[in-house]
Amino acid sequence: MQAEILATGDEIRTGALIDSNSAYIAEILLSVGLDVVRHSCVGDELEALVAILREIGDRSQFCVVTGGLGPTVDDLSSQAAAMAADVELIFHEEALRDIQAFFDRIGRTMNLPNRKQAYLPKGSDCLRNPVGTAPGFSMMIGRCRFCFLPGVPKEMKRMMAEHVVPIARQSLGAEATVYRIFTITTFGLTESGVDERLTGFAERFPELKLGMRAKFPEIQVKLYGQGTDPKRVDADLSVAAEHVRSLLGPSVISMSGESMAEVVGRLLRENGKTLSLAESCTGGLLADLVTSVSGSSDYFLFSGVTYSNQAKTAILKVNPDTIRKFGAVSEETAGEMALGAKAVSGADYALSTSGIAGPTGGTPEKPVGTVCIGVAGPGFASAKRYHFKYGGRDRNKTAFAVKALDLLRQSLITGKDPFQS
Amino acid sequence: MQAEILATGDEIRTGALIDSNSAYIAEILLSVGLDVVRHSCVGDELEALVAILREIGDRSQFCVVTGGLGPTVDDLSSQAAAMAADVELIFHEEALRDIQAFFDRIGRTMNLPNRKQAYLPKGSDCLRNPVGTAPGFSMMIGRCRFCFLPGVPKEMKRMMAEHVVPIARQSLGAEATVYRIFTITTFGLTESGVDERLTGFAERFPELKLGMRAKFPEIQVKLYGQGTDPKRVDADLSVAAEHVRSLLGPSVISMSGESMAEVVGRLLRENGKTLSLAESCTGGLLADLVTSVSGSSDYFLFSGVTYSNQAKTAILKVNPDTIRKFGAVSEETAGEMALGAKAVSGADYALSTSGIAGPTGGTPEKPVGTVCIGVAGPGFASAKRYHFKYGGRDRNKTAFAVKALDLLRQSLITGKDPFQS
Repeated sequence: MQAEILATGDEIRTGALIDSNSAYIAEILLSVGLDVVRHSCVGDELEALVAILREIGDRSQFCVVTGGLGPTVDDLSSQAAAMAADVELIFHEEALRDIQAFFDRIGRTMNLPNRKQAYLPKGSDCLRNPVGTAPGFSMMIGRCRFCFLPGVPKEMKRMMAEHVVPIARQSLGAEATVYRIFTITTFGLTESGVDERLTGFAERFPELKLGMRAKFPEIQVKLYGQGTDPKRVDADLSVAAEHVRSLLGPSVISMSGESMAEVVGRLLRENGKTLSLAESCTGGLLADLVTSVSGSSDYFLFSGVTYSNQAKTAILKVNPDTIRKFGAVSEETAGEMALGAKAVSGADYALSTSGIAGPTGGTPEKPVGTVCIGVAGPGFASAKRYHFKYGGRDRNKTAFAVKALDLLRQSLITGKDPFQS
Repeated sequence: MQAEILATGDEIRTGALIDSNSAYIAEILLSVGLDVVRHSCVGDELEALVAILREIGDRSQFCVVTGGLGPTVDDLSSQAAAMAADVELIFHEEALRDIQAFFDRIGRTMNLPNRKQAYLPKGSDCLRNPVGTAPGFSMMIGRCRFCFLPGVPKEMKRMMAEHVVPIARQSLGAEATVYRIFTITTFGLTESGVDERLTGFAERFPELKLGMRAKFPEIQVKLYGQGTDPKRVDADLSVAAEHVRSLLGPSVISMSGESMAEVVGRLLRENGKTLSLAESCTGGLLADLVTSVSGSSDYFLFSGVTYSNQAKTAILKVNPDTIRKFGAVSEETAGEMALGAKAVSGADYALSTSGIAGPTGGTPEKPVGTVCIGVAGPGFASAKRYHFKYGGRDRNKTAFAVKALDLLRQSLITGKDPFQS
């Protein structure tokens, strides 16, 4: 059953506010089994509202509308819905009682404009709003079932669960379908590289849809399945996911959509190991990625973000001669940084980064994008030099940090020095 | 002139990704003088794409489309545009050269699917993409001028400025019009707080447009001016900017749109001072913000990201008794962390954070959102406890980090302990 989402309001139309409601509503409608085909947004303008409600009424079978239910002159949803369906606005005694009850609850006096909120299109069902003043309503326009909700996210979410989901299920009747997403995280391939390897997927799995989402430098491959038999959909997705894994090989880092930092965190926790870091060019980003995983204090001990050479020697105990002889950006310095971070914090593993994120600081031998990554673990400590060509400072920092985590990931899986395998 | 915005892609259609591009585009199109009447979103489905392009082509005179320009099978924008306009796809030699040049620049081999990106609708103008592989294009469909851009925000933003704004101006027939933006950065007020203080702006400066953009926890106030006389536009903007500054008072941190980290970096450089950090709850984010400013190695020396108490005592020389007596999250520990970071690295200033970012770890006395921030400078070291109620872990980390930078900013301006003024 084809569904749409309509956001109303000048704040969204003019870009003053980013519409996050529609994404929330889309995920819920899809999970119930509706096929969301379009989102739209129009401003607080009666003619534009009536036109788009009629369009959707002709085109789809289900629609959730947000916004325009308040007491002000800008709030035109009831009036527009009544005009689009060619019916009158009727005073709803029940709606007024709800509004009154809300004001009583929060200890305020109801204003005259709030009475306007009790006028709803004839033939519509009032959708009670337990957390705000604006009641919603549900009605047919054309061949489409519309649900009108407030734009305030908290109220919208509560009413999605209490009203819209049951109405959507009822509208679907026997047609009820389930909808599932399987997410595979990859690292080390470009989007087009992933795509090339997955050529022929659509022919092999015509019942599934394939999507891709770049979260630089990771790429998520998403498999979308839907059908009336949940077991069948899950089984189809499992087969297809294994096929994708076999095509993408070692670039697959998670079969459940985890980020690199989440994978590394899980492996550290499963192995009962702790981690410290020594960062130069990543400037705290590596620690930030690691600690953005909730519960990371179970395994993360310390990061020494050492921009100055003095900090590298004083805190991480890097030998000043090493820096003098090989430079701060060298395998030698990176190796000693990792060892130092491990020793000073008593961690089981340590990672280090020293490189040139740009835009300045590059030399012919060590251009922008050069990074030396060190890994220290039980019985080993080594480092390797890489050169990334992503251009911008932020992308270089991110690429360096995620590459370091990937080396740790490999080491945690094999139990070995990642540069020796 | 009536304009629309179309976002394409299954991630947005399914709600996996919130569409922030359309808000950005809406603000720019409105500021150029176009009347944005509708935003829409459809998924990666050829029929749906062709249908909506034709609709918009019948209804409006200008449209910006994002997404669907990549090399994958999901990327259908060129094909859909060609079908909607009833033209063929043609191989653009120039587009291929640009794609090839991008791959050369980043040192990768171009994959076969990238060749697909060089096929553009016949009669369209290629819009060069200086920061990615996907060229955009501009063409008429029906009576509407369309500009197709990549969905990657960084690429989209660059191409809006370089291509879409000039095309929009030309479509409007207003080539002689200049367009200026004045950006004021604020910290410490909510969006509605800023809005309330700026009531009456539109009446006082009817020739300018006012916008707001939240870059949590900073809020940028944007003043848009346009006209045929550049000097007049600049003068109007200056007067209005001073008016805004007087209304917003000390929450204004920059009159040129700098971020908090940029302001702090500039002040450190101007004063010839260096900075070190001691981070617990911010987990490296504070260092990441500081080092994301290019040239930060001139003043940033070290951050000790000390999650474990062992690291706090071993590296930052915090007295174990202090942690035992007052807890890791306390003014006392935060003060010693800042002193330790300053001493161990020889910096002029140091900031520290110790708190509870959540979602777990809160207690009745120290709920989630509690943070103790320490500041050490020439002749002083002190700390203060704050409680932020933003909810999520990421927002708490960000709020803690930017608050710490704001305290340093105040100290750099006054030369004093920020808690004593």
